[in-house]
Amino acid sequence: MSGEPNNAAASSNTSLNAPTGTRDLYPLELARRRWIERRWRDTSLRHGFEEIDGPTFEHTELYTRKSGDGIVSEIFGVYSGKDEAGLKTMGQRLAAGETGAVAPYALRPEFTPTLARMFAARAGQLPRPTKWFWQQNCYRAEKPQRGRLREFMQWNCDIIGIPGEPNAGATPSAAEKAELDAEIIACCVDLLRGVGLSPANVKVRFNDRSVLGNIVSRLGVDDEHHAAAFALLDRRNKLDNADLEAMAFEFGINSIEFLNFLKRPRGGENLASSLAHLPVTDRGDLERLTQPLTLLQSRLAEAGCAEWCEVDMNIARGLAYYTGMVFEVIADGERAVAGGGRYDNLIATFGGPATPAVGFGMGDVVLSLLLQDKGLMPSDKQIAAELGLRPDAFVISNGSPEADALVGPVLAKLRGMGLHARRSYKTTGKIGKLLKEASDVNSRFAVIIESSEEITLKDMDQNTQDRGPREALLARITLA
Amino acid sequence: MSGEPNNAAASSNTSLNAPTGTRDLYPLELARRRWIERRWRDTSLRHGFEEIDGPTFEHTELYTRKSGDGIVSEIFGVYSGKDEAGLKTMGQRLAAGETGAVAPYALRPEFTPTLARMFAARAGQLPRPTKWFWQQNCYRAEKPQRGRLREFMQWNCDIIGIPGEPNAGATPSAAEKAELDAEIIACCVDLLRGVGLSPANVKVRFNDRSVLGNIVSRLGVDDEHHAAAFALLDRRNKLDNADLEAMAFEFGINSIEFLNFLKRPRGGENLASSLAHLPVTDRGDLERLTQPLTLLQSRLAEAGCAEWCEVDMNIARGLAYYTGMVFEVIADGERAVAGGGRYDNLIATFGGPATPAVGFGMGDVVLSLLLQDKGLMPSDKQIAAELGLRPDAFVISNGSPEADALVGPVLAKLRGMGLHARRSYKTTGKIGKLLKEASDVNSRFAVIIESSEEITLKDMDQNTQDRGPREALLARITLA
Repeated sequence: MSGEPNNAAASSNTSLNAPTGTRDLYPLELARRRWIERRWRDTSLRHGFEEIDGPTFEHTELYTRKSGDGIVSEIFGVYSGKDEAGLKTMGQRLAAGETGAVAPYALRPEFTPTLARMFAARAGQLPRPTKWFWQQNCYRAEKPQRGRLREFMQWNCDIIGIPGEPNAGATPSAAEKAELDAEIIACCVDLLRGVGLSPANVKVRFNDRSVLGNIVSRLGVDDEHHAAAFALLDRRNKLDNADLEAMAFEFGINSIEFLNFLKRPRGGENLASSLAHLPVTDRGDLERLTQPLTLLQSRLAEAGCAEWCEVDMNIARGLAYYTGMVFEVIADGERAVAGGGRYDNLIATFGGPATPAVGFGMGDVVLSLLLQDKGLMPSDKQIAAELGLRPDAFVISNGSPEADALVGPVLAKLRGMGLHARRSYKTTGKIGKLLKEASDVNSRFAVIIESSEEITLKDMDQNTQDRGPREALLARITLA
Repeated sequence: MSGEPNNAAASSNTSLNAPTGTRDLYPLELARRRWIERRWRDTSLRHGFEEIDGPTFEHTELYTRKSGDGIVSEIFGVYSGKDEAGLKTMGQRLAAGETGAVAPYALRPEFTPTLARMFAARAGQLPRPTKWFWQQNCYRAEKPQRGRLREFMQWNCDIIGIPGEPNAGATPSAAEKAELDAEIIACCVDLLRGVGLSPANVKVRFNDRSVLGNIVSRLGVDDEHHAAAFALLDRRNKLDNADLEAMAFEFGINSIEFLNFLKRPRGGENLASSLAHLPVTDRGDLERLTQPLTLLQSRLAEAGCAEWCEVDMNIARGLAYYTGMVFEVIADGERAVAGGGRYDNLIATFGGPATPAVGFGMGDVVLSLLLQDKGLMPSDKQIAAELGLRPDAFVISNGSPEADALVGPVLAKLRGMGLHARRSYKTTGKIGKLLKEASDVNSRFAVIIESSEEITLKDMDQNTQDRGPREALLARITLA
């Protein structure tokens, strides 16, 4: 579903177009998004997550605290037009070319900081773990392109805290982490399965930042260069060896062992083949090192997700706040559908007690394109049926004045019965044309008002009809 | 539902609070909002409206075009942090104290301009009438107070165009307008009825701006003072006669007849009693004048809404764009729950063909407070049941290692069957405590894993239980 990222309005005045990278969603397009929302929601609920929501805009500092001042050029600044004194100061700072958090607020580029703030605010009362999901729009000041818009909908699931860990500072064991990590991935996989995707074209590729940190250390990269090393690993499948080497040099990484690991053959890798390229001979030691990954594999198998998931030593995920497991859902070997990981330090960053957490996010834009490209987006008729959009009754007058006068009351009667009832607004009196309209909107029944007492009730699916007293026949619709 | 307009975060740092006038919605609070959304949605669908959505922020000019530059101090400005050159210019203009549209974008204070733009962009293909609904958040830079927040959810229904009117410039007859005006009001009334409100405490008070315009003219107010006269009428129930007179003088209105009409007795008015205070003796002429109102009364009666609706000559609604029928839903004689009216010129303002239209908006904040105050908000248990949030199964291990190992696979199995399944995260092995937890989350069934083959299935509602082979008993849950 592409929506209308750049619809042309009747006027050439750009202020009459939707802003670049946003969408006008007409009924059919919105129904497709609502269908995705419904699937996200149902999946979350099945897995025991509860929904929360927060502000569309937050204090800018909420985002710079997590991501640094650099985020400011990637987000939309927001300010109140009422705050006259504040506006002047803000204007002076912007005019002076100040970067960083100048506007007091920002449209949320993601939900995690809000979630961390909300958990921190009630950390004392909330259960461990707390399982929350969220699905609303996010906003990024990026150049729009296929699969990437400035306003998009995102689904998040997060598990915060570990079982039986009510106290601040508790450090989860590898087994505890693997259990909740698998639980998060299983929920994501269930969505993929539910929309008709298969492990043949979509894979959850996972890794562990702590494992990767150990490996990188063993390869001679010191702690202060770990972030740069992760950034290089993340780019391994997009850059050739010469570029990787140049970048490593730029970052100040000169370990030959690390460069060799970076340049190992690409494609068809698994955990064993990746590790075979490590200059380490003690296999027992390697097994202990990779235990978080093998533990997770076991839990994923128990959750019925084994064939969807594979370890991928190329996944590091740039975001600094991930502390353990990281994963990406990749379709057709290249399209990132979702991503997430463990972030054990974030809640504390937002003023809460140290609380381990794991979560993921999935956007509507890439998922929609993928489903469309694969022919997996249901037909508009199927979507309408699934979302309860199908009309129950379509009311038609036979053209007599007494019938005309009853259209309104019959509609009111049907709606009062809880039914979705429509009428024709056509000025034609030809019943054939009006029945065609009832069929075009896929109504279950047509109600033809014949007189002040009688109607004809036509079952549009069965193509059968009955004529008789109004009230008795209308009652049949609710029973159908 | 008040949500958390000002939640205190663990830190005293204000950047860790939600922005003033926005809400953190935890699961129970969000469920109540989702329940309202569900009612809005179901009501819209029953009445044949189709849902659309548009951008959260629009070009600022979209709003100033409809409401003038004054709106800028009431809304939130939005700008892209990426647009460095634009930021400097914007900063200079703000620093210079420029008012008006300085930020390129604004958070939507309402949806109607977006709707008008969307209709204008596809006016050639869309049916007449087009019936759209919308429910999302709006944003206003107002001082927050009870019933008024800076971010709130709004429900809109609009009927655009009149039947059989495909051409630009068509002017609807009084009868055509009354029919669609009644249709809009009937949808709004159906929502009020559906949430348990009654005509005893909530009334739809309607009027017609064209009728009011005629009356005001007859009372000696010239055309250029009509807007001021409407503003005075709108304030009649909030100000005393001396203040009204002072305001009229300030506006340059000095017609004694109008002032007398303004000062007529308040309370218990209806159409006849209001008009009795007009210095007009030709009753036949008055009947012709008030025909739009009496026509609408007839259509409302046909739609089963008579007892909910009454003409109120004190309703003018300040917004300049209303051209005909205007209405407000008033609870307990003073709380405005919803409002709307006919706006026949707005589509053309946004570049579309001249197209008559009528609609209304209702916010979640006042409605929630009203339902809470009247004890009409369903219990959290009822809401959970209605929204499908109730767990189907709660999985418990009997504490043996073989049972512990089966918790994950059984959960996966149940979720794969499309069921909402949860487990305990408590470290206790005491089955009584775990069953209490199953009961606390209102699960329909508890599944106690007894061995590698057997489970006990406990029906929590019936308080019955069976022990037997796992697969056979699990299958019973879907049948229940």
